[in-house]
Amino acid sequence: MKNYTALLEKIYEINDLQKAAGLMNWDRETYMPPKGAAMRNLQLGTLSRLAHEMFTAVEMGELIENAASEVQDAAHDYDSTEASLIRHLQRSYAEARLIPSDFVRRQTEISGEAWQAWAKARAEADFASFQPHLEKVVGLGQELADLYGYEDEKYDALLDKFERGMKTADVRAIFAQVKEETVPLIAAISEKTDSVDASFLHRPYDVATQKALAPYFAQSVGYDLERGHIGEVIHPFATSFSRDDARITTRYYPDFLNPFLFGTLHESGHAMYEQGTGAELARTPLARGTSSGIHESQSRLFENLVGRSRGYWQRHFAHLQAAFPEALGDVDTEQFYRAINKVQPSFIRVEADELTYNMHIILRFELEQALINGDLAVADVPTAWNDKMQELLGIVPPSDKEGCLQDVHWTRPMFGYFPTYALGGLYAAQLMVTAQAQEPSITAELADGQVTTLLAWLRTNIHQHGRKYDPPELIQRVTGQPLTPAPFVRYATKKFSEIYEL
Amino acid sequence: MKNYTALLEKIYEINDLQKAAGLMNWDRETYMPPKGAAMRNLQLGTLSRLAHEMFTAVEMGELIENAASEVQDAAHDYDSTEASLIRHLQRSYAEARLIPSDFVRRQTEISGEAWQAWAKARAEADFASFQPHLEKVVGLGQELADLYGYEDEKYDALLDKFERGMKTADVRAIFAQVKEETVPLIAAISEKTDSVDASFLHRPYDVATQKALAPYFAQSVGYDLERGHIGEVIHPFATSFSRDDARITTRYYPDFLNPFLFGTLHESGHAMYEQGTGAELARTPLARGTSSGIHESQSRLFENLVGRSRGYWQRHFAHLQAAFPEALGDVDTEQFYRAINKVQPSFIRVEADELTYNMHIILRFELEQALINGDLAVADVPTAWNDKMQELLGIVPPSDKEGCLQDVHWTRPMFGYFPTYALGGLYAAQLMVTAQAQEPSITAELADGQVTTLLAWLRTNIHQHGRKYDPPELIQRVTGQPLTPAPFVRYATKKFSEIYEL
Repeated sequence: MKNYTALLEKIYEINDLQKAAGLMNWDRETYMPPKGAAMRNLQLGTLSRLAHEMFTAVEMGELIENAASEVQDAAHDYDSTEASLIRHLQRSYAEARLIPSDFVRRQTEISGEAWQAWAKARAEADFASFQPHLEKVVGLGQELADLYGYEDEKYDALLDKFERGMKTADVRAIFAQVKEETVPLIAAISEKTDSVDASFLHRPYDVATQKALAPYFAQSVGYDLERGHIGEVIHPFATSFSRDDARITTRYYPDFLNPFLFGTLHESGHAMYEQGTGAELARTPLARGTSSGIHESQSRLFENLVGRSRGYWQRHFAHLQAAFPEALGDVDTEQFYRAINKVQPSFIRVEADELTYNMHIILRFELEQALINGDLAVADVPTAWNDKMQELLGIVPPSDKEGCLQDVHWTRPMFGYFPTYALGGLYAAQLMVTAQAQEPSITAELADGQVTTLLAWLRTNIHQHGRKYDPPELIQRVTGQPLTPAPFVRYATKKFSEIYEL
Repeated sequence: MKNYTALLEKIYEINDLQKAAGLMNWDRETYMPPKGAAMRNLQLGTLSRLAHEMFTAVEMGELIENAASEVQDAAHDYDSTEASLIRHLQRSYAEARLIPSDFVRRQTEISGEAWQAWAKARAEADFASFQPHLEKVVGLGQELADLYGYEDEKYDALLDKFERGMKTADVRAIFAQVKEETVPLIAAISEKTDSVDASFLHRPYDVATQKALAPYFAQSVGYDLERGHIGEVIHPFATSFSRDDARITTRYYPDFLNPFLFGTLHESGHAMYEQGTGAELARTPLARGTSSGIHESQSRLFENLVGRSRGYWQRHFAHLQAAFPEALGDVDTEQFYRAINKVQPSFIRVEADELTYNMHIILRFELEQALINGDLAVADVPTAWNDKMQELLGIVPPSDKEGCLQDVHWTRPMFGYFPTYALGGLYAAQLMVTAQAQEPSITAELADGQVTTLLAWLRTNIHQHGRKYDPPELIQRVTGQPLTPAPFVRYATKKFSEIYEL
């Protein structure tokens, strides 16, 4: 396996450059001083370009093909690391060859500047100052779609990079079903909205106490802090530099408990996926979650299916209450459980409940398609955003800070990413049904706020494989059928019907 | 200047790789989770190797020579960035060609493992577990000296990399003079040691309050936090990823105020040097302090000549006292000034006073020469250390934690670095005499705890030049004479004679 070994060495080198760039990105959002941004962006540009040049070099194509012959001769089976890596590299090499170095360089620079502009624009609710940057980013997105190519619609080319094998039309159909099934549920709940009191979640919650609690809640769902770190940022994310260094970030509001609590559980779900990838995949592109949607299934599973369950809080509420005796002293576990599951249209996606959340995603999915197709001018984004908020949730944000400036995503041409957030919730429900069927003890453990068997099942069925299998293939192998929104709909209907006595 | 521009592009690329590696190093000691170390070390190995390969490639030599012809033709003067960069690159290229890639790779890996072992050995005061690692590091040092070559003694080759132009024999002579002049002073003080009470510096000092004060003291000497960051580590250091992102680290003891206070001022001095390098030098190897000794002159100037002066505390003591009313309520400014200048033999180098500090350095300087010459076996380091402590300071550390395991330096083959710490103090005193002669207002400002004119003078005379001039050249240009220990001896004799009424 001489050629395969030579290929691995080169792949390790590229991986290490990418992880260095990843650390520079993470640091930019956590600890970098404000004036360090300009130089950092240049440095990031260099590392991204070098990694891209190495991976797209003609010699890399030869290395892959020579190694592919060896792997085939050695008759490694389809599921082996070797065969999976070759499959992955052949495809991503072909795709990467479509993207010129110059595009990568421009993308890094434009995105770096857009990020700076966005952070300021968001703080000042000033869309106009972000608009020229967003125009450039949309331009990059359109250019990218053309470079990759597509059959039916431009957006397909972009979506495929986050959820391989999924077509825009598929997502539209699945989202139509979600709308059809859950809109009546939301309507029914709206008539009884006052039956759930969540006001105590907005009492004063000391930020230092929240910070001190973050490790407790991250560890409560199995996040390994000896291989992790909890940072503080404006817009939380998870990132990993190896399976042994998979980090989360979170944020703390002095007068709202949810962002910290459910943000921490959410990002822990992401990081645990990375921590669970097989050790034999280390330093290869297989050592990460297979797609944005499957990644999101892990975060939303721990945030919602575990973290908003009655059993979880029967175990953990006393600990939270002891930390905040003034804010939670007059609240019992059942009141808390109901409050964190209150369904109510709101402005901020990351703070939305399980049901209205999908509406936030459908909004972005529809705007993105229009931007990429050229049907919507960037200047009209605030108006279009507010119109859709009115249409889907019946509310209009007071400013663009709570509207179209709330998310960091559009500082990069990552169109096609947002829909995977909603897909994640659907995958999660489908995986949970299978897990409970295959390991009956999971149901009892969850009722007791425990996740040991559930996490072990996810490690075995999802995490360890990393990127060996594309999402449709993985979901078919694990659950025996393609993605369907039915399990989510059943779960949500049962849960919220009980809470709202429908 | 086509060739010069092509050279710059390549130099920027290498710089960016080195800064990425620098960030990985910084992160390893600040925020990286413990189990992330193994993968991080592999990644660091890759980046160091890539940067080294790029810089030592035959094409780089050609690029430098082609650009050198252009710069010569354009008649750029000696002080220009262009001519200085060519001078620097020609020399460092020739030197780097002497070091094989394999050596760099081994050095990075051995040092990564040695760092891990050291951190554990230090915590457990267990030299035996560090010994095999130190043996490898000493081996690297000897190998390095042979690769670089030397005329008189092996140690010369190593010393030259930290203090270019300085010979081991020069340092021996200078240190002999320091010993001769200050040992009697220390002896005289020892008879009156009880006349200064420093016990209140060991009262309880809340760590969170210290952390909250760190920005105040860093900024009091001119450190720009919009282009900096204060992190927390076991062994403090400063590092920079650009002039706009020059970071310090510090540490906080719950029962000893000095490490935080003077560590912060010390590292701020280092970081201000980096922040002050000329913008036109950015992303080139000229954009950093010219040598370890000159770097140390900046840190020790702000730590000692400013930070342990009466004027500084007349301005700042009230602020410190207000933060620690219980520990400092019964202390006045003069008592505080005397306490922080108490001369007393102690175990830990970084906590030593200005006079005994040099003895710590002379100890390490002598041990390093013996290790590199092969006159001292690594296994005998603890005994040799303790013997020399007895000889120089009359005390013996209770364990190796307070002895030969206290410093991080020997996890890397950076022999020749320690002596520059003492050289720094000597440079600092010599620079201060010149600054006060050239800018008379500095004396009055210092008496009032202010550093504006002093910092401006340092920016102009030292910082902005970066690595354009070697230390002997820089000191000659700025002060009109070579390094001499006389100004330090005069300063110390005057200051401590007054405090101890000699």
